[in-house]
Amino acid sequence: MCRWLAYSGTPLPLEALLYKPKHSLIDQSLHAKLGPNTTNGDGFGVGWYGDDDDPALYKGVDPAWNDQNLREISRQVQSHLIFAHIRASTGSPVQYTNCHPFRHGKWLWMHNGQIANFGLVKRDLTLAIAPDLYPFVKGSSDTETFFFLALTFGLEDDPPLGVERAVGFIEQVCRRAGIDHPVRMSVAVSNGLDVWAFRYSSEGQPPTLYFSTKVSTLREQHPEIPAFQALSDESRMVVSEPLGDLEGAWNELPASSYGVVKLGPDNLKQFTPRND
Amino acid sequence: MCRWLAYSGTPLPLEALLYKPKHSLIDQSLHAKLGPNTTNGDGFGVGWYGDDDDPALYKGVDPAWNDQNLREISRQVQSHLIFAHIRASTGSPVQYTNCHPFRHGKWLWMHNGQIANFGLVKRDLTLAIAPDLYPFVKGSSDTETFFFLALTFGLEDDPPLGVERAVGFIEQVCRRAGIDHPVRMSVAVSNGLDVWAFRYSSEGQPPTLYFSTKVSTLREQHPEIPAFQALSDESRMVVSEPLGDLEGAWNELPASSYGVVKLGPDNLKQFTPRND
Amino acid sequence: MCRWLAYSGTPLPLEALLYKPKHSLIDQSLHAKLGPNTTNGDGFGVGWYGDDDDPALYKGVDPAWNDQNLREISRQVQSHLIFAHIRASTGSPVQYTNCHPFRHGKWLWMHNGQIANFGLVKRDLTLAIAPDLYPFVKGSSDTETFFFLALTFGLEDDPPLGVERAVGFIEQVCRRAGIDHPVRMSVAVSNGLDVWAFRYSSEGQPPTLYFSTKVSTLREQHPEIPAFQALSDESRMVVSEPLGDLEGAWNELPASSYGVVKLGPDNLKQFTPRND
Amino acid sequence: MCRWLAYSGTPLPLEALLYKPKHSLIDQSLHAKLGPNTTNGDGFGVGWYGDDDDPALYKGVDPAWNDQNLREISRQVQSHLIFAHIRASTGSPVQYTNCHPFRHGKWLWMHNGQIANFGLVKRDLTLAIAPDLYPFVKGSSDTETFFFLALTFGLEDDPPLGVERAVGFIEQVCRRAGIDHPVRMSVAVSNGLDVWAFRYSSEGQPPTLYFSTKVSTLREQHPEIPAFQALSDESRMVVSEPLGDLEGAWNELPASSYGVVKLGPDNLKQFTPRND
Repeated sequence: MCRWLAYSGTPLPLEALLYKPKHSLIDQSLHAKLGPNTTNGDGFGVGWYGDDDDPALYKGVDPAWNDQNLREISRQVQSHLIFAHIRASTGSPVQYTNCHPFRHGKWLWMHNGQIANFGLVKRDLTLAIAPDLYPFVKGSSDTETFFFLALTFGLEDDPPLGVERAVGFIEQVCRRAGIDHPVRMSVAVSNGLDVWAFRYSSEGQPPTLYFSTKVSTLREQHPEIPAFQALSDESRMVVSEPLGDLEGAWNELPASSYGVVKLGPDNLKQFTPRND
Repeated sequence: MCRWLAYSGTPLPLEALLYKPKHSLIDQSLHAKLGPNTTNGDGFGVGWYGDDDDPALYKGVDPAWNDQNLREISRQVQSHLIFAHIRASTGSPVQYTNCHPFRHGKWLWMHNGQIANFGLVKRDLTLAIAPDLYPFVKGSSDTETFFFLALTFGLEDDPPLGVERAVGFIEQVCRRAGIDHPVRMSVAVSNGLDVWAFRYSSEGQPPTLYFSTKVSTLREQHPEIPAFQALSDESRMVVSEPLGDLEGAWNELPASSYGVVKLGPDNLKQFTPRND
Repeated sequence: MCRWLAYSGTPLPLEALLYKPKHSLIDQSLHAKLGPNTTNGDGFGVGWYGDDDDPALYKGVDPAWNDQNLREISRQVQSHLIFAHIRASTGSPVQYTNCHPFRHGKWLWMHNGQIANFGLVKRDLTLAIAPDLYPFVKGSSDTETFFFLALTFGLEDDPPLGVERAVGFIEQVCRRAGIDHPVRMSVAVSNGLDVWAFRYSSEGQPPTLYFSTKVSTLREQHPEIPAFQALSDESRMVVSEPLGDLEGAWNELPASSYGVVKLGPDNLKQFTPRND
Repeated sequence: MCRWLAYSGTPLPLEALLYKPKHSLIDQSLHAKLGPNTTNGDGFGVGWYGDDDDPALYKGVDPAWNDQNLREISRQVQSHLIFAHIRASTGSPVQYTNCHPFRHGKWLWMHNGQIANFGLVKRDLTLAIAPDLYPFVKGSSDTETFFFLALTFGLEDDPPLGVERAVGFIEQVCRRAGIDHPVRMSVAVSNGLDVWAFRYSSEGQPPTLYFSTKVSTLREQHPEIPAFQALSDESRMVVSEPLGDLEGAWNELPASSYGVVKLGPDNLKQFTPRND
């Protein structure tokens, strides 16, 4: 299980999200409250959109709390659309190529949760990745396989549909292999304009996921973060765990749903895995 | 604050201490119970005595729980005298040269605790290291400075006296600099034959420290560890935290005392910092 | 291109092979003479057989010349059968899971050379790995794929046949994909008893490969290495580059051949890729 | 011995200096031509000035040619004043705290060369660092000690004087300790506005150092680097090795001299160690 954060809105330096809040993502790397692991020390990653279409990445295999370079870069880099992730491995090795977020062209993808018994179905899932996408798979994690399945199933044309079909397919393959509870997930994906955030579990409760609601409340709750005072009302965060006190600022995303952060009013829709 | 373990007795593979027990040192790296930090992920180290007089070291800067090589080496290396340490940094950088145990000639040294406000007194303490020892200082941690002060004050001739004088000196320098509560420590030191373990705090409670008592109880409590079944009655562990259930197998070392593990009956004595 | 060394014979500490010779493997990591790269700084690995059937591994992603732990372990570990490898990546990421030697059960495998345009054929080659072996593939390198193909094609029953069939298959898949010069290789493989060393190239000259011949000459050439003075006459090294002067001590393995190091007289045979 | 590059002028993305030129700094990390080592694989660092007064740092302990994050950051970060350094250690450990450039407040410092027999004089040199600066020393390298001596001797008020007095002092201490040829150096230092570059050796030839001269020639020689086409005529590079063909674009700095890159015409002056 991991922790992640997605941000879209008024350009912010990374540090305003990663270091400044009381229960910041870096703090969560040592003291997560809502997941099964208090420690998320198996690597980390940040992705952000700058002047190019393609997002930039900075990833590391040491615990995020110890990375001097992350601290430096977080003061230098500003972006209007930021993904950040701290990892608690569910088995695959701690190496750059297994750190989130994953990137393909202009797309970023990150995940908290797992495909259960991944080793048992890895071959079948990997074979289902489109052959022209296959060479872009660099690591060995369930999350990267999931991402490339979503790409195979049409993520770039219709993100929710791509994810629903990928999850439907994974559930089918897993169940054929006798795996119960195949998928637990909170996933964020972006093309540099919009952000889609999914919360789902094949059975039982999915991992937690929260949307920031009123920016005015965030401003009040975090007087210690000057950058937050300048946030536009459209600015939005999606997080595994609230960065501070919950009340008034954060709404839980319901299970089996997804939200879209975009220009204009955001959407909240139902998420249903598909096998078509 | 860190966690550590010292072992002396029937030769054991490292894994019998590091991985096999339920609440092994590797488990403590993620789930420590008795210290201020549950996570000890800022590097680790193992030192052991083999055929040479000089001990061997294996240290790493990643969290111990992720180190594949440690897992391999722990199955290969056997020793009758083993030091192992997992680090939760109190400020100095996570780098090989700051990982415990520290070695000088045939001596090993490791530490849990800290010299308070070390930056404030580091220069004065460093200047007091004997000039012929100074070139052997490789890192920047309070622990290594402490070790070289103990060497300067006669550790090699009389370990308890060397440590008592080093602590007396550190307390003096710290108090002159206006630092309260200068020293908190549980320290282990060995010359390859005996092990000395110190527990002390300038004020308040020192870090926890336990001696294994009856080997027969250890054997009963750990039927899952075949290597433990062959332990001689003289075999002894000193640990920050018991490796399993406390009852019958572990005794707490009193504050302001030190124990000596050696051939024949072990000793427990009072520890008193000195300024002579 | 990489450099490697295989040793079988009188038990030696690793350091006698890795550090002591004038043109040792560690020296080759900075100053290789016979390959296309003078620097082999993209990770390293050592594998050795101890008391267990299964060999032990120590691998790292930093350059071998900088690894303090390798230096320590090389003084501690003795073995009668040692593989050591320094890597110059031909493209796949520098991560533990891509470092040689690779292990499966009691087998070790290492490689210098490459499968040309590996990205183009990786999917087809990967699909040909036996499904029950597939979950053991951990990295993304051409060498590991090659190893698991050889296992698929019967390496464990008949090593030369397994390698000949794997190479035949790889050449076939590559040529179908329009790749010229698909395979260049010097490969070592062992089951803990015998060592097989292969030298082959689909076209042109394969990577260099040398066998030690007279142990007496080795002893004379390396008076600085006490451990060499005790080598039995049966002791044998296979290396990418001689560890010292060539004359009298080293024989080049001919192209398209393989040698077997085993009890009794060694063999030199022809190597012919197969498609049966 | 190391390689380095300093740039001042029209804002450039780091990649235009680090990756794009034919004989870029990253290429020099594997294939240096003018130093004693062809490989500079013992860590690296980049420092640059952004919107803050204080420069930012990105450093790593792996070889620069393997660092994925450096590649990413180099496309994202633009600056008008850039320091970059690749290290070939002369003995001190490969760790973040020993990587160049070093920073103190708004100052950056990097170095190629060495203080001979540094271990012998390290204590005396360290004691001479001003006590209020001492706590900022984080590593164990000769270069960092040299930097803090220059700061102690007035670098911030008069950079050339601070360096001349530091070198005079180091030479004095070394000679008292019986060390010949104490200092070999090419040093760059900046406060964010100007860059000072020093070339000196106590005896014999100092390390190479080149200034870019005509920007128009640089533009012509590097049509493959679009960013170079926009360089102002004031833009200037100082490098250990030219990034491409020498003719017309690069001038060697004479031994025992220093250059100042600043608004208006640059200066070239004599460098003379002092003991006042």
